[in-house]
Amino acid sequence: MKVALAQLNYIIGDFEGNSAKIIKNIQHAKAQGADLVIFSELSVTGYYPHDLLEKKEFIFKAEETVQKIAESCRGIAAIVGAPCINENERGKKLFNAALFLADGRILSVHKKTLLPTYDIFDEYRHFEPNNDFQIAEYKNKRIAVTICEDLWDEQPTASEFGKDKLYQVSPMERLAELNPDFVVNISASPFSYNQESWRKDILIKKAKTYKLPVIYVNQTGAQAELIFDGGSVFINNQGEIIKELKYFEEDFLVINTDNEAEKAVQPSSGYIEKIYNALILGIRDYLYKSGFRKAVLGLSGGIDSAVTAVLAVRALGPENVRVLLLPSKYSSDHSIEDARQLAENLQIQYDLIEIQSAVDGFEKSLSPLFEGTDPGVAEENIQARARGIYLMAISNKFGNILLNTTNKSECAVGYGTLYGDMNGSIAVLGDVYKTDVFKLARHINRNTEIIPENTIIKPPSAELRPGQKDTDSLPEYDLLDQILFNYIELNQSPDEIEEKGFDRKVIERVMKLVNINEFKRFQAAPILRISSKAFGFGRKMPLVGRY
Amino acid sequence: MKVALAQLNYIIGDFEGNSAKIIKNIQHAKAQGADLVIFSELSVTGYYPHDLLEKKEFIFKAEETVQKIAESCRGIAAIVGAPCINENERGKKLFNAALFLADGRILSVHKKTLLPTYDIFDEYRHFEPNNDFQIAEYKNKRIAVTICEDLWDEQPTASEFGKDKLYQVSPMERLAELNPDFVVNISASPFSYNQESWRKDILIKKAKTYKLPVIYVNQTGAQAELIFDGGSVFINNQGEIIKELKYFEEDFLVINTDNEAEKAVQPSSGYIEKIYNALILGIRDYLYKSGFRKAVLGLSGGIDSAVTAVLAVRALGPENVRVLLLPSKYSSDHSIEDARQLAENLQIQYDLIEIQSAVDGFEKSLSPLFEGTDPGVAEENIQARARGIYLMAISNKFGNILLNTTNKSECAVGYGTLYGDMNGSIAVLGDVYKTDVFKLARHINRNTEIIPENTIIKPPSAELRPGQKDTDSLPEYDLLDQILFNYIELNQSPDEIEEKGFDRKVIERVMKLVNINEFKRFQAAPILRISSKAFGFGRKMPLVGRY
Repeated sequence: MKVALAQLNYIIGDFEGNSAKIIKNIQHAKAQGADLVIFSELSVTGYYPHDLLEKKEFIFKAEETVQKIAESCRGIAAIVGAPCINENERGKKLFNAALFLADGRILSVHKKTLLPTYDIFDEYRHFEPNNDFQIAEYKNKRIAVTICEDLWDEQPTASEFGKDKLYQVSPMERLAELNPDFVVNISASPFSYNQESWRKDILIKKAKTYKLPVIYVNQTGAQAELIFDGGSVFINNQGEIIKELKYFEEDFLVINTDNEAEKAVQPSSGYIEKIYNALILGIRDYLYKSGFRKAVLGLSGGIDSAVTAVLAVRALGPENVRVLLLPSKYSSDHSIEDARQLAENLQIQYDLIEIQSAVDGFEKSLSPLFEGTDPGVAEENIQARARGIYLMAISNKFGNILLNTTNKSECAVGYGTLYGDMNGSIAVLGDVYKTDVFKLARHINRNTEIIPENTIIKPPSAELRPGQKDTDSLPEYDLLDQILFNYIELNQSPDEIEEKGFDRKVIERVMKLVNINEFKRFQAAPILRISSKAFGFGRKMPLVGRY
Repeated sequence: MKVALAQLNYIIGDFEGNSAKIIKNIQHAKAQGADLVIFSELSVTGYYPHDLLEKKEFIFKAEETVQKIAESCRGIAAIVGAPCINENERGKKLFNAALFLADGRILSVHKKTLLPTYDIFDEYRHFEPNNDFQIAEYKNKRIAVTICEDLWDEQPTASEFGKDKLYQVSPMERLAELNPDFVVNISASPFSYNQESWRKDILIKKAKTYKLPVIYVNQTGAQAELIFDGGSVFINNQGEIIKELKYFEEDFLVINTDNEAEKAVQPSSGYIEKIYNALILGIRDYLYKSGFRKAVLGLSGGIDSAVTAVLAVRALGPENVRVLLLPSKYSSDHSIEDARQLAENLQIQYDLIEIQSAVDGFEKSLSPLFEGTDPGVAEENIQARARGIYLMAISNKFGNILLNTTNKSECAVGYGTLYGDMNGSIAVLGDVYKTDVFKLARHINRNTEIIPENTIIKPPSAELRPGQKDTDSLPEYDLLDQILFNYIELNQSPDEIEEKGFDRKVIERVMKLVNINEFKRFQAAPILRISSKAFGFGRKMPLVGRY
């Protein structure tokens, strides 16, 4: 059977736009002689609609849209993802479904059984698990239609404090009993640089176990925090990846399930390049899908804002990025010079505003209240917040989205000022550890010096007091980031981290910093997620408590 | 059987504090001749620990603590709530359990079957549903031990777009087959002023259906956003509430399951008084459980900050509340006077800082960049953000927690400045509509004028430009709040709201304002929840999309 894999970028709730794109691809697939074209999970609504799924008008609109798409399926079949209503007396109101469309109607409905409800996934909040297994039959082929997690009945668990068999059922085991010819998996699987290989391993394992070809169709595009990387594949019944679609962009390919031997996979790239591409897509889609084109950020001369500026320019074009240089009396000359040099290298608009007089004004009017106290965090934060006012003024006046430049190491230990440098509509580097920010800078400079070398080699500093360095209050980033990765991504206990050779006191200090800063992260900008455990809605900690 | 109901306030992760309190109450119950003492759901860990449940050291510590508590149960039995490990090969790693402790050990384990995963509940994220029903046997009594939602197999659904039978199983139906003598329900049920009666109705219905006495033990205290109201009850086998414990405070009572006829229920109070008590508890516990005692807020002369100040004084005492008066050139004289009068009525420290020179400074340095533009939102926001800087400076310098004064109507339609008046560690009124804020003010002034009358009767204004009134950009609050309640709490569609007689254009304008302001609410302060649908983690909407 000739099957088209349509790896597209959807917008949540944009029924018109999504269905127009789907119908266009159905026609395109038909023109290329495909019998069936496959779209990704919840492609009709966009993934993930969250509590819009509780609105009846949203669900009825989704149903109408599926009907409209079905009517365009003549002489070709399509599989699309959409919610469908649970007509049983008991259970949640909806199923997460794959709809098999042909002959102008819905031929069969395949409902998701395994509903991921961990990390960023929240599907049991809205959907009832399926318990009814059937095969789609079309043109003498028997097709096992599965949805994302349905093939993940065996989980690779990050720590031993979990189960590899997270679910009571194996949908594929049940479907295999019905003698399918091949397996389709429609997915909405977000990118994590440190879990990416798991996904392919699972798909390969299923192909081998059941000796069936597997067609996996993921979406691409970013949906606020989540970045979907595409990378759809066709795997033969030996478990070999025969075709692989592009990463971080839309793609389309027709394969023959019976006769596809020539391999065409994507060139492999390192994790830093993947993160680089992911973040560019994340910035672009955050702005475009919110209806904006232009961004603003503050350039400090430091590495975080430098890397963010480059990513913004790659995402939006230099004409759509402007920066402010906002030095105070503690800013070193080279900082201003480095920032200016970067802006010129990128050919973006930059303006310089001295913040000192604003800061002095605040301090003067506060002096009767602050009498007898020593200068400290309160005064340092005034600087960061004054910068925030300037950046938001540009944003409010001209409609440029403020990009936040906080990195994951800072975000973890609370090294940042709420309502100051923590401002922004989207945190570009909020899931990238400082040591990886350096690697991104090197990657950006691999052919030519875009980020001034001085920005990369100087010791990191917030420049909020004379001679300040990040290492005055934090461990060296090499050490800090390793401890954080063990604690956050790997969810390890202090004992386990200590066993790896780290100093107990440093571990406990870092963990305490992470724990006491939940209140800051609660109000932080949304973070572009590139790892298996980002700060944000995939990591929910109590806001107050003793731990 | 003599049973003690221990309605207590726990701290998440505070195993030492929680267990000390539990053990003290076990001893107290024993001294009063009780055979059994009942604590609430997840009392050992505090409710709700969220992803701390994914940390093995947290779970092991909970197990240890249960053992320690069990050892204190000699000559008396206790039921406590704690997570316990799922030893089966498949499923989530944990159960949400009620542990029946007696003779120094765990006598039986009763696991939660129905795991609420909607609104603010997220239990399927961490727990496996139980499928094994058993009775606790103690001193010749057969006790059906259930956990909160286990009695809620039939849901009152707010809109018809849901099911009243949300679950496949009815745990009480199964337990009733085992001939219990009475039912225990340990609970962690947060306060919603508009759903409170449902809870009692459900308990009464179960008592009547199964002709069994029901002992319901809820917790009290606030856990960041969530406020638990207590109100534990003993219901006889006719479905009559015989005893009722206090609301919004700890309480303790011994009842006799076989012989308890004399009624002692709490005096009934109106919903405004309940909200008033809930918010006071919410402020106090947010601060105390975070390790703070003092608060700061800005007094504008308006009603939101006035009501917030009164609630803060009731929660923390006048010596722990300080306020700033931060007038600009657009502030009317009476605003400053009203604010000053309130501060004097409350006997709290107040300082006045004119913000105009700071605002002028920002505008002057931005003037080359703003040349040729008309003054607008950018300039208005500078005022709100300058105030934010002053308030946060006091907070950072002296350790006073900044209380946010935004009300629910503003929060809904985005009538507030990010990083300005949206600042704060906890939003006291964020779940209270403006029309209810007025009622709270009247309630506060019921005996004597604490809030100046002028604050209550003048038209609401942000005072960010000359002669500005809220109604310049918003519908009248009476109308706005009704539409918002239908849209947010009742989750109704525009058609349904229109059928109630509201103007379609106004409905659509309000809905659009709500929808386009998700980005603001994403970074808003945590909100004390008093309704069935507060902004915050109980209402998750996509951040970008078209809807």
